[in-house]
Amino acid sequence: MKVLVIGGDGFCGWPTSLHLSDIGHEVTIVDNLSRRNIDIELEVESLTPIRPMGERVRVWKEVSGKELGFVNLDIATEYDRLVDLLTELRPDAVVHFGEQRAAPYSMRNDKAKRYTVDNNVRGTHNLLCAITTLGLDVALVHLGTMGVYGYGWSGSAPIPEGYLTVKVPTPDGDLAREILHPANPGSVYHLTKTLDQLLFAFYANNDGLRITDLHQGIVWGTQTPQTALDERLINRFDYDGDYGTVLNRFLMQAAIGHPLTVHGTGGQTRAFIHIRDTVRCIEIALNNPPERGDKPSVFNQVAETYRVRDLAELISRLTDTKIANLPNPRREAAENDLVVSNNRFLSLGLNPTLLSEGLLEESRDIAMRYADRADVSKIIARSVWRKGMEVADDLVK
Amino acid sequence: MKVLVIGGDGFCGWPTSLHLSDIGHEVTIVDNLSRRNIDIELEVESLTPIRPMGERVRVWKEVSGKELGFVNLDIATEYDRLVDLLTELRPDAVVHFGEQRAAPYSMRNDKAKRYTVDNNVRGTHNLLCAITTLGLDVALVHLGTMGVYGYGWSGSAPIPEGYLTVKVPTPDGDLAREILHPANPGSVYHLTKTLDQLLFAFYANNDGLRITDLHQGIVWGTQTPQTALDERLINRFDYDGDYGTVLNRFLMQAAIGHPLTVHGTGGQTRAFIHIRDTVRCIEIALNNPPERGDKPSVFNQVAETYRVRDLAELISRLTDTKIANLPNPRREAAENDLVVSNNRFLSLGLNPTLLSEGLLEESRDIAMRYADRADVSKIIARSVWRKGMEVADDLVK
Repeated sequence: MKVLVIGGDGFCGWPTSLHLSDIGHEVTIVDNLSRRNIDIELEVESLTPIRPMGERVRVWKEVSGKELGFVNLDIATEYDRLVDLLTELRPDAVVHFGEQRAAPYSMRNDKAKRYTVDNNVRGTHNLLCAITTLGLDVALVHLGTMGVYGYGWSGSAPIPEGYLTVKVPTPDGDLAREILHPANPGSVYHLTKTLDQLLFAFYANNDGLRITDLHQGIVWGTQTPQTALDERLINRFDYDGDYGTVLNRFLMQAAIGHPLTVHGTGGQTRAFIHIRDTVRCIEIALNNPPERGDKPSVFNQVAETYRVRDLAELISRLTDTKIANLPNPRREAAENDLVVSNNRFLSLGLNPTLLSEGLLEESRDIAMRYADRADVSKIIARSVWRKGMEVADDLVK
Repeated sequence: MKVLVIGGDGFCGWPTSLHLSDIGHEVTIVDNLSRRNIDIELEVESLTPIRPMGERVRVWKEVSGKELGFVNLDIATEYDRLVDLLTELRPDAVVHFGEQRAAPYSMRNDKAKRYTVDNNVRGTHNLLCAITTLGLDVALVHLGTMGVYGYGWSGSAPIPEGYLTVKVPTPDGDLAREILHPANPGSVYHLTKTLDQLLFAFYANNDGLRITDLHQGIVWGTQTPQTALDERLINRFDYDGDYGTVLNRFLMQAAIGHPLTVHGTGGQTRAFIHIRDTVRCIEIALNNPPERGDKPSVFNQVAETYRVRDLAELISRLTDTKIANLPNPRREAAENDLVVSNNRFLSLGLNPTLLSEGLLEESRDIAMRYADRADVSKIIARSVWRKGMEVADDLVK
């Protein structure tokens, strides 16, 4: 089928585009290269040497014999070009990764907060509006986040896949009602994904759009079978305090012999998934879209959960590195449990890679292999959730 | 106190500005005059002859001796000027009416949908961001809508004031949890107010902003004691299919001898409040802000509920006019009940004007008095909620 991948130059978008191309779909990437521009702004780079889009597309053709389309287009600010592209291409499916996706970046300052809200909400809404106006019958798959749910909201009940049936007290007794899980976003970035959910619910209900929202955990791993075919196809590995996930920053610290820096007690539990499983989940979601008239379909895109300090200990043992504790700049509980339902993907055939199996490869083939490209000063997270929570300079190497 | 009224040139904003000035507050209006520009776009005008802002401000000085500030500024697109203004003024309170507020307009076409989302979300978020960045301790009062709740969601229970305690099933038994009432918006306009709620919840929680969200019903009535002091201070009366409420369109039809056009069965129940009570509610909200750290405070700003066909019958009797039925272009149930809690305002002293008391004045002093200014072709609502629901031309006079 014809698939448009919006944000196809990014960390999830690029390997997804290659995977979908590899299994025979006709893929066109739409990207405004914002992720590369933010690297310039933050004065950081992917640890792995990523190539310009033109080269990526050319090498993929060399290696696989398949064509990848690429259009440099900003869906948030170039609505008319988006409409023209959809009109010309008439895709069967659209995968939407085109949002600013780092929580720390979204909390840096008012400029970054505003960019995150304006870019993410406008982009998503423009896309919904264009599909509706053109009357296209597409399966829309959007990357959400586990962060829409918050932590510990539903007590000992596992976090459901999007929807929750609650009892509403009325004079005639309790009324059972299915609700979208209440929004508990922990950053402006996460907030935008809770806004997206309401946009999706409206356009599914009013206009019959067929939408799947994937609430993804923290993605780890760098390579998929396709990105590993040629070094010029390599995927991003971000290790900076804004875009690097906790796991990548641990791996990077270990690779350069720096203690693993745990914020707070490290008692925060987080959900994880390997990038190889992300691309498989997108494929599964594309093959199982909701019907016209259905509410948005929600999957929790996670493989397992880990407490941050347990993750640090796992990497510490694997790499023989010490652990150091720093203050936590986020507004969150020091300790939380996290039990997540992920039955929908498992029942559709996902057999996930676990951290205990894949971390050694990641440490050896990525973090250590490219360690000489690292800028050590960028590893610590400097964004603060509110004033007075800055990390002291003497804690930062 | 120093109060900034954003959207102070509009139908609710103008009388609110005069009321707050009248009771001794130092009022500065911020407005980009978008409401007047949309009139130009739609080729309609307020039935009542409204004056330019410069004249309005001058006449208010003549009549009351009080100064009103006015700054022509678009909070959605001129963030830096907004920051400069807040820095210079350091207001104690901000009343935020600065959003596109017509549901039919928001459904006209993709341009209007996108304008509504971009303008409303960006404006509200810019304001929250600016207040946070400057560290201002202001009471922020925002005009929401009863439309965030939808109709009939909670069965026989009255619609609560913003929050609802529900029971969440867990393996350890039911867990009581207070949630924001689930969002059930009926148009893109209403959708934006549900997005605002999530923005407010986040900034109240993360940054301690003190926010009151007023879920208002349909406002009727034109004049307040202040706008009635001089004809040059008169408030707007919109009767067109986009911005005119059902009530104003009935009054206008009656004034020109056209049958009252009821969409569908007229079985939709709606909540109403007089503009005189709107301005009083804003005053009460300003005097009763939440504390720093509180969740956003929500009031239902309504006086009474009416079924549309009963309202038509009330006006039909009052003016001796026939009733005609048209198809309903909205996606909604044909009939609904509506029971609303409005205890918070009543307990704080609001003694509302009811339709049965004030409609005659409205019909005689506004609709009939200015009937020769009406453009009859504009009364019928032409926006459709989705394709295929257009009103046939032969139903429209």
